[in-house]
Amino acid sequence: MPLSSPTGHRPASPSTALLTDRYELTMLQAALADGTADRRCVFEVFTRRLPAGRRYGVLAGTGRFLEELEDFRFGPAELEWLSNEGVVDDRTLDFLAAFRFSGSITGYAEGEVFFPLSPVVVVEGSFAEAVLLETLLLSTLNYDSAVASAASRMTSAAIGRPCLEMGARRAHEDAAVAAARAAVVAGFAGTSNLEAGRRYGLSTIGTAAHAFTLLHDDELSAFRAQVAAQGTGTTLLVDTYDVRRGVENALAVAGTELGAVRLDSGDLTLLASEVRAQLDAAGARSTRITVTSDLDEHAIAGLAAAPVDAYGVGTSLVTGSGAPTCGMVYKMVAREDAHGVLQPVAKVSRAKASVGGRKSAARRIGTDGRAVEEVLVAGPDEAVRGWRATEPDLRGLHVPLVVDGEVDPRWTGAEGVRTAVARHRSSRDELPRGARRLSADEAALPTVTVRLD
Amino acid sequence: MPLSSPTGHRPASPSTALLTDRYELTMLQAALADGTADRRCVFEVFTRRLPAGRRYGVLAGTGRFLEELEDFRFGPAELEWLSNEGVVDDRTLDFLAAFRFSGSITGYAEGEVFFPLSPVVVVEGSFAEAVLLETLLLSTLNYDSAVASAASRMTSAAIGRPCLEMGARRAHEDAAVAAARAAVVAGFAGTSNLEAGRRYGLSTIGTAAHAFTLLHDDELSAFRAQVAAQGTGTTLLVDTYDVRRGVENALAVAGTELGAVRLDSGDLTLLASEVRAQLDAAGARSTRITVTSDLDEHAIAGLAAAPVDAYGVGTSLVTGSGAPTCGMVYKMVAREDAHGVLQPVAKVSRAKASVGGRKSAARRIGTDGRAVEEVLVAGPDEAVRGWRATEPDLRGLHVPLVVDGEVDPRWTGAEGVRTAVARHRSSRDELPRGARRLSADEAALPTVTVRLD
Repeated sequence: MPLSSPTGHRPASPSTALLTDRYELTMLQAALADGTADRRCVFEVFTRRLPAGRRYGVLAGTGRFLEELEDFRFGPAELEWLSNEGVVDDRTLDFLAAFRFSGSITGYAEGEVFFPLSPVVVVEGSFAEAVLLETLLLSTLNYDSAVASAASRMTSAAIGRPCLEMGARRAHEDAAVAAARAAVVAGFAGTSNLEAGRRYGLSTIGTAAHAFTLLHDDELSAFRAQVAAQGTGTTLLVDTYDVRRGVENALAVAGTELGAVRLDSGDLTLLASEVRAQLDAAGARSTRITVTSDLDEHAIAGLAAAPVDAYGVGTSLVTGSGAPTCGMVYKMVAREDAHGVLQPVAKVSRAKASVGGRKSAARRIGTDGRAVEEVLVAGPDEAVRGWRATEPDLRGLHVPLVVDGEVDPRWTGAEGVRTAVARHRSSRDELPRGARRLSADEAALPTVTVRLD
Repeated sequence: MPLSSPTGHRPASPSTALLTDRYELTMLQAALADGTADRRCVFEVFTRRLPAGRRYGVLAGTGRFLEELEDFRFGPAELEWLSNEGVVDDRTLDFLAAFRFSGSITGYAEGEVFFPLSPVVVVEGSFAEAVLLETLLLSTLNYDSAVASAASRMTSAAIGRPCLEMGARRAHEDAAVAAARAAVVAGFAGTSNLEAGRRYGLSTIGTAAHAFTLLHDDELSAFRAQVAAQGTGTTLLVDTYDVRRGVENALAVAGTELGAVRLDSGDLTLLASEVRAQLDAAGARSTRITVTSDLDEHAIAGLAAAPVDAYGVGTSLVTGSGAPTCGMVYKMVAREDAHGVLQPVAKVSRAKASVGGRKSAARRIGTDGRAVEEVLVAGPDEAVRGWRATEPDLRGLHVPLVVDGEVDPRWTGAEGVRTAVARHRSSRDELPRGARRLSADEAALPTVTVRLD
């Protein structure tokens, strides 16, 4: 069987190079042929607007993109398929066989908050190498940031109570791994997803489902089996039959040392209060209550006064709570002309116009330590540096992600996640008072563009 | 470095076994310990309701699930991580090391339409093996079916004009591959996604983006380069600067043999008419017009009278056009008791109750050849078979997917996609007149449950 026979199975090679729109390669072929492929270009990733009513976005996926960039290689299997399909010509195949991104990428640190037009990633390199990254870069940032942006509202609404990610079954199986990671970036305490635990060193959680109770002849037998296997510190799911009886059975089996009970249906405010009273009356004052039924940020906020100790969130988290993608785009903002001079460029036709030229980005911080505005500065590099030096209340937002093709390892793997968690916490704390309200409103900061040219 | 050190990179092994919620494994451990792990069980996948206003759902992802089931093995890397993390005990690790699903799975054929409570997949096996599949099965079906359900409305609205999938950048990079496949199942003609082309033998499409025009000193140079590389049959993107001028430039370079022009912004109805008139006046009567700007099924329907030849769809397709997941659940409906007798079971507490017992499913077809109702029949196997024999107007919906652990290869790879495309076309054609209207309404068929016990 040839390498390229379609089987549907996951490829044995970890190459990410074909996670790409076909037109990136056909543009490359045409640019190689006419000599423009070597022109130095600057591409920006930004979003034109936030989802309706949202006050800020949360950048996530940067670390994942960098990991996948290291595996963005066209190996024999990829080249053979491209050749068999006639996607590009031999010259282009030769280019792809040797391809390794050698440009530079800067961007907002993962976990940072963003606003309309914030240049969250800036890619600089030859057209040939920069154009190839478009699809993979946007896929990783658009999905992960959609999840992190929703997750941040949930952890805000939870006011310090732990939120647990449990949405794997409601998302594509690999997207689920990214969702768990993005949720943790935005403050979630753990995930049910084992692969996310393995790949990013996240805490994994989970004890039993209704099926485990139904498997047994009665609830008591199920609880006995679970406590025997997992200890009294486990979480028992008490709503398969009758919640009051379920709590009685749980206490009968595990005693007052029971770790937690979980409620997955019904009026959670009412049930949590009844269960808390029942547990307390039985002396199980340290037994916690976890709730997990189709929660979103509004449901979490609605439970603030209920005696709930942890929230498990699934569907609404992994689907971005109404905004399942971020609408980030990848736009060329500057490129060398025929004389080797970098020129700002932008699409100008009717809708979808964009601002040309490479931009620097900073957040202006007020005397109370809170953010005031998002400042984008366009102009020659030296002018931008000079101007920034005169504005001490600006916090620069761009950090180096890739320098001359070398990925900075600080942003990848488990360390990258830990760094992003800290970044998100700091950036969110820095937002103006009221920015974390869930009600629909404008962006929490205005975006101001300064032109120095 | 130990195998389990978290690096973020895609695992070298193709194992899908950790794309699983932790509680599946902790339930397994407890069931192995108390002897219930061997109880024969029946689990059903179904959805309690369709998204608001939708008239039918489209099952997709079955073939992908079967491909991933074959790779659902706990290898050394997976076992080492589970051991290091203390997820389960040694007895369970031994079970997982030897694990290979040996049960049977039946279900609706991929591409089939479904309604609330339709048992789209039925898994039968020991509790130990059936419980392990929950997360992977739901992830594949929930995402792929969400996309296919949206895609079917789009291809309906397009009334025979080709729809092209271009949404990779707005979805997780691996979800995008599944989305392209699901779109094709529901009638899309091709995809921009190269990996989807490779893995499933799908047609891939794409020529150039705005960046290619901006790369060049002027639009004419860009079009010349593209036509030189791709021939006059290519599609030129004409809205980077001014559409009328863009069409002039396109014709100047490619002549009246130009394959197509693409419009990606503005009032598409108006622009398409103007461009059609301009092309016709220049004698380019066979040059097609493709439109691609944030389309969904309603925008496509709105363009029915415009001279458009093909639709490129991105964001709304890969996010399920407002319904990014299907809400399918995996519920135990029967299991052996202590005496080895299969007993129907169901959660009974308050909300989320389900109907116990294994169900057979069929669609009743009227004398005009159109579907009348979805019939679910619960009862002893023999009674169900006897009853079905008396109802000749029923089309049975369950097909064997896995028999005693062996995946039926008809449903996987490129052949599986082709079969699903045909299944969807037939099943949609069979729906009652009016079922394909986009306006919000009830499910197109009522679901009737017959109990023979």
